[in-house]
Amino acid sequence: MGLWREHSRGQLDARLAEARTAYDRLRAEGLSLDMTRGKPNAQQLDLSDELLALPGRGVYRSASGRDCRNYGLIDGLPEARALFAPMLDATPEQIMLGGNASLAVMHDAVWRAMTFGVPGGKGPWSLGPVKFICPVPGYDRHFNLLAHFGIEMIPVPLGDDGPDMDRVRALAASDSLIKGIFCVPKYSNPTGVVYSDAVVDGLASMAAAPDFRIFWDNAYSVHCLGESPHPLKSLLAACEAAGHPNRPLCFGSTSKISFAGGGISFMASSLENLADARSHICLQTIGPDKINALRHVMFFGDYAGILAHMAKHAAILRPKFDAIQAVFSAEFDDTGILEWTRPQGGYFVSLQTLPGCAKRVVALAKDVGVKLTEAGATFPHGFDPEDSNIRLAPSLPPLEEIETALAAIAICVKVASLEQLTAS
Amino acid sequence: MGLWREHSRGQLDARLAEARTAYDRLRAEGLSLDMTRGKPNAQQLDLSDELLALPGRGVYRSASGRDCRNYGLIDGLPEARALFAPMLDATPEQIMLGGNASLAVMHDAVWRAMTFGVPGGKGPWSLGPVKFICPVPGYDRHFNLLAHFGIEMIPVPLGDDGPDMDRVRALAASDSLIKGIFCVPKYSNPTGVVYSDAVVDGLASMAAAPDFRIFWDNAYSVHCLGESPHPLKSLLAACEAAGHPNRPLCFGSTSKISFAGGGISFMASSLENLADARSHICLQTIGPDKINALRHVMFFGDYAGILAHMAKHAAILRPKFDAIQAVFSAEFDDTGILEWTRPQGGYFVSLQTLPGCAKRVVALAKDVGVKLTEAGATFPHGFDPEDSNIRLAPSLPPLEEIETALAAIAICVKVASLEQLTAS
Repeated sequence: MGLWREHSRGQLDARLAEARTAYDRLRAEGLSLDMTRGKPNAQQLDLSDELLALPGRGVYRSASGRDCRNYGLIDGLPEARALFAPMLDATPEQIMLGGNASLAVMHDAVWRAMTFGVPGGKGPWSLGPVKFICPVPGYDRHFNLLAHFGIEMIPVPLGDDGPDMDRVRALAASDSLIKGIFCVPKYSNPTGVVYSDAVVDGLASMAAAPDFRIFWDNAYSVHCLGESPHPLKSLLAACEAAGHPNRPLCFGSTSKISFAGGGISFMASSLENLADARSHICLQTIGPDKINALRHVMFFGDYAGILAHMAKHAAILRPKFDAIQAVFSAEFDDTGILEWTRPQGGYFVSLQTLPGCAKRVVALAKDVGVKLTEAGATFPHGFDPEDSNIRLAPSLPPLEEIETALAAIAICVKVASLEQLTAS
Repeated sequence: MGLWREHSRGQLDARLAEARTAYDRLRAEGLSLDMTRGKPNAQQLDLSDELLALPGRGVYRSASGRDCRNYGLIDGLPEARALFAPMLDATPEQIMLGGNASLAVMHDAVWRAMTFGVPGGKGPWSLGPVKFICPVPGYDRHFNLLAHFGIEMIPVPLGDDGPDMDRVRALAASDSLIKGIFCVPKYSNPTGVVYSDAVVDGLASMAAAPDFRIFWDNAYSVHCLGESPHPLKSLLAACEAAGHPNRPLCFGSTSKISFAGGGISFMASSLENLADARSHICLQTIGPDKINALRHVMFFGDYAGILAHMAKHAAILRPKFDAIQAVFSAEFDDTGILEWTRPQGGYFVSLQTLPGCAKRVVALAKDVGVKLTEAGATFPHGFDPEDSNIRLAPSLPPLEEIETALAAIAICVKVASLEQLTAS
């Protein structure tokens, strides 16, 4: 086929007519498909159905004999802290459990810093303007929560091994109003990259405000799609080694391991940061749900149990990710009108259309019943300056629907791209 | 016996010697008893043991067919909202569910108001000084969270039918910096009073700042110890009728109904307040744990099921409350050295010692192995100006231990009182 931008006007017009015909056929099909959010599908949720009957009648004692039904343990059940600690490369002492949503744990960490400050800082962040570095494309919920607190977001491009560290270093060193960076370091949302050791070390060692914090949303820590997991250097260890032990705040959850709506979240950090967090959290709760923690400990047993469980998730998800590669490769290899990621883990495939085409693709897809994440959602304030990034979330629909959706998306990409190539 | 303060010095000295002898015997017993916190005991927790195996394998659908294992429903499971709504005299639309701790729901409601403001107000409360009216004696965790946010607390005496409304009215009408009042309106912590209709109407209709909020911690809504529950007028309805629909924020939980550490919390308010709260909470979470909600719906069935369940709690708790009455009545009737409450529900008995004796009683008790809530804890900043209030929490220890503890406390009260009566 060759690069489409090199085609003659006649060839492009013919392709556009063809694509529009295909698109009109799509409209007639009355599709209703949703690829907007990274939600696990029912088959994945079924993997954890044992949890629904756990811990079982009469079973409520922790390993140390404590009655998990009653109040107490602000850091969460000790054996659950030990179970989840390896997911964040933390020791059991460095992790505390939250409710069912790691989003809440991250949100509240920002909120506490805004209201009360953090160790090493000079009072509440909200006393002055606050800025965060935001690798883009990134996760819309991170951006939305920062925007909600009036935090200025400075986009920095995310490359194949993490954010552009020259830019990150220069920003952090030059502006003490920059208080943080929000990262999804492994199987990044949406591009699927894993931060390299050099990036981790760079973040850990760079010059930054004394109360600078790395919000390390390690949501896909164990969400490998392939045979062997991809190593991510420990941020806690790197920061400790670099003399900035309080810099990292690491987050995770079982939302995409057990039940998305009924799992367990956690935060790992230095003991000083945890003590500071605890000094505020103790006004807020007497402790997270220990019965749910016990349930998860009984179900997974240990970290190896979590990894074995994740292999079952991968077996369900991999064909969907493979289907994306197959369809896009067949339709777009060498066309120059679409780039897409080949993630080895996580929940997303990231598309890069011709500049100025993403919104049009999403709108075209919506009109034929295929819901995609809003174009721009992967950028602060929903503004993608190139209007070219689209996030695909293939987990929720069954494989047959993914294939139908992909065929539809391919047509939409063609229509939008050809409209643009023929516009001038 | 007669009023001890009318006794001769000789009589008092003899009594004190006798009490000290008894106290020394106590010390030799090596007691280890804890009456500090309102924690349910194991027998009460056993009442809900069915929850430990619910919802059961393969059971995860809501009434409308939704998969409760997955993300979604920021207000919580609809049938659980309907189940708990009557506890706060709310409609199902007026209630949203939280995590396992109503303390967190209250804390976050204050935090949101401080950071973002509330409908009717002029921006964040934290832009200026903030004051709250605090009926005393009251609940230490309320006072502690207000203090944590730097909110000035204005104590107002709590009488037999609620706070002194003349004082409350005068304060709220005269100072627009007063943004709220924290109430436990039914079986109040610690005195056990139920707010009268006149007090509820007074709070609902009084003049106050447009962003004044009543934090209505209805923690003991269904926690009747006697045969028939005590009516509490609906604050939501009273405020609606008085033209201040946004004034009430009502809170509750199943912490002392199902599992203290694994229950469900909720907040009820006007639709406008809920929409405002939701506009912030949606940045924080995708929704509370729906599996735990489903579990509770299956277990209780309906509101009548909750009431039937509470009768079982009452059967366990009542003998402990009766024991307190029996011991104190036998030891202190007509002595004039101790007053105590006779609550018809809730978790506490409140003692009133001679002025200046409460700390001494708690210290004496501690020295012989009986842990009581710190004297002063029932007042803002832990300061009881009379040093005379002590909160007893009889739920956790078994009945035999309560009886042992009560005998010890009676001796401590005598020692402390007689020390004072003989001091001048």
